[in-house]
Amino acid sequence: MTDEAVEHRRLIIAGSGIAGLSAAIYAARSNNDPLVLEGDEPGGQLTLTTDVANYPGFPDGISGPDLVNNMKEQARQFGTEIDHGIVTDVEADGRPFRVELRDGTVYTCDGLIVASGASARTLGIPGEDELMGFGVSTCATCDGAFFRGEDMLVIGGGDAAMEEANFLTKFADTVYIAHRREEFRAEDYWIDRIEEKVEAGDVKIMKNTEAVEIHGSEEDGVDHVDLVRHPGGHPTDKLDAPDTEQLQLDVGAVFLAIGHTPNTDYLEGTGVEMDDAGYLETQGGDGGGQTKTAVEGIFGAGDVVDHHYQQAATAGGMGVKAALDADDYLEDTVTAEAAEGEEVSAEADD
Amino acid sequence: MTDEAVEHRRLIIAGSGIAGLSAAIYAARSNNDPLVLEGDEPGGQLTLTTDVANYPGFPDGISGPDLVNNMKEQARQFGTEIDHGIVTDVEADGRPFRVELRDGTVYTCDGLIVASGASARTLGIPGEDELMGFGVSTCATCDGAFFRGEDMLVIGGGDAAMEEANFLTKFADTVYIAHRREEFRAEDYWIDRIEEKVEAGDVKIMKNTEAVEIHGSEEDGVDHVDLVRHPGGHPTDKLDAPDTEQLQLDVGAVFLAIGHTPNTDYLEGTGVEMDDAGYLETQGGDGGGQTKTAVEGIFGAGDVVDHHYQQAATAGGMGVKAALDADDYLEDTVTAEAAEGEEVSAEADD
Repeated sequence: MTDEAVEHRRLIIAGSGIAGLSAAIYAARSNNDPLVLEGDEPGGQLTLTTDVANYPGFPDGISGPDLVNNMKEQARQFGTEIDHGIVTDVEADGRPFRVELRDGTVYTCDGLIVASGASARTLGIPGEDELMGFGVSTCATCDGAFFRGEDMLVIGGGDAAMEEANFLTKFADTVYIAHRREEFRAEDYWIDRIEEKVEAGDVKIMKNTEAVEIHGSEEDGVDHVDLVRHPGGHPTDKLDAPDTEQLQLDVGAVFLAIGHTPNTDYLEGTGVEMDDAGYLETQGGDGGGQTKTAVEGIFGAGDVVDHHYQQAATAGGMGVKAALDADDYLEDTVTAEAAEGEEVSAEADD
Repeated sequence: MTDEAVEHRRLIIAGSGIAGLSAAIYAARSNNDPLVLEGDEPGGQLTLTTDVANYPGFPDGISGPDLVNNMKEQARQFGTEIDHGIVTDVEADGRPFRVELRDGTVYTCDGLIVASGASARTLGIPGEDELMGFGVSTCATCDGAFFRGEDMLVIGGGDAAMEEANFLTKFADTVYIAHRREEFRAEDYWIDRIEEKVEAGDVKIMKNTEAVEIHGSEEDGVDHVDLVRHPGGHPTDKLDAPDTEQLQLDVGAVFLAIGHTPNTDYLEGTGVEMDDAGYLETQGGDGGGQTKTAVEGIFGAGDVVDHHYQQAATAGGMGVKAALDADDYLEDTVTAEAAEGEEVSAEADD
């Protein structure tokens, strides 16, 4: 803290997705001079979505990147500064907080809004990166409706995979679920729902099966997927085994539902509380202060908190709440303390 | 319920403000065929705001009516039906629910999203209606920044009035607070904050004072306000008393903070729980089902629930959550029961 090069900011917002930028718009309008640190995935998850049809206010839809850029411009107009920077460590033992970035830059700040999101896990197979946003998606609710009438493949075996597969039956001809093991990890509730869909002929389950390559093009989307199956599960570990089968599945869309990882590592040791999966715990409830974490002055918004809804509009709403909560905090504590400090100085001058 | 003319709907949304329309967009995309009943104030509170600068996604701002119309168009595109209609009664003893409108129309529905908002109370004085949106406002957070550097008048004596006055000191030259009685109703916390602002010269308090007329024009906004003062309070009840004074105050904006009334009368007797002020109690928390009320199948979103943040983005976020919660409910109970019913019929045919 003795480093003279350390810059102090009233409010830092970690993350530049919908939650972070919505918070920035409000924070800037409240004269809290926010600094947004973009993080590893500037613009957040929404930049993966080519056509956002369900963000309220755009009847003709808007692309994910355009929506993000609009919000950036809006936040900047009111005085937000947006910088590259990945937060690697926060110290919250004293005030101000100390925020360290990967490149070694250090800031201090009075308030911190954590809006660093959750990153969808991916498989790392050929075709996956290239076709992300062109038939490969990590969000059925966002993109399912674009593939009405087509066959779809959901990859995963947990609650999210079952929920997405269940949701996609509204639109799909047949939904395939590929899971690398024999047993689903999902709770019975979801397995029951899916079994009903299997009986109705809407879902087909492929156990002990993993995808190894996704084929298609940006123009025509996904064409087919290569998979492998082994009766003992985890077939990609057993590619050369005699009873490993090669499969090909013609589908128009692939939904990855193998989990998200909330980006909260940098908060370890701060006293901010997280659940077992790493999602921030916030106060919730029905009055003000819904986005408060266990550490006064640190607020959470967006997918780093919300493991359920995860929509642009819900993230934006939480971002706005975090900015208003942070404004209350900064006004009540930091500004009030500064005013007291001035009074003391004034008295000392007498 | 024996009336053959009763139309059944899968999902009814009461209210056509930001919460109701955001819910409708998602509900329509989830094939829940929503019917939006517009209510007493079609488009809701936001239609009172001429320039919405803080709804994330519109860097050049958008007018309240335009944002509402965009959402209407978006909701309709995915299959939402929007109708005139003011809900006067809901019966939730059985399933489906029974929804009665002021004009006598009756619907039944499987799910109900309550998004009927809260109406700002107004004074009913000359100039108030005419200048609403042109210098008269019921939302300091929405409109305060448009009057930077001007003198402003806040009318009210409760928490909201103190909070708005406190917030407006960011922008105003001087903020005046006019309250009809000697004592504020606000909690000490807010009174302390305001007293600090009075000492700093940013706020001036006018007790036992009421506005009687607002002067100005749509072109030039508010010019001045006529007020009356009586040392015993409630001066408009004592206009002819010898010690009642007439005052004139030059201000550029008038903010009414004399309370909101959530529009929930029609839910009495349903079992939906409300707080003392009439706001809906919802489940909250951090997983799914945040918008559930005490009655299964009835969900709440927007200002009818939220007595604190009350922003377009927060209302929209809650609307989206309500639609997703309602979709879970309808899928799990109504669709599942229908499927069981079909099985029974099929067996009966054997």
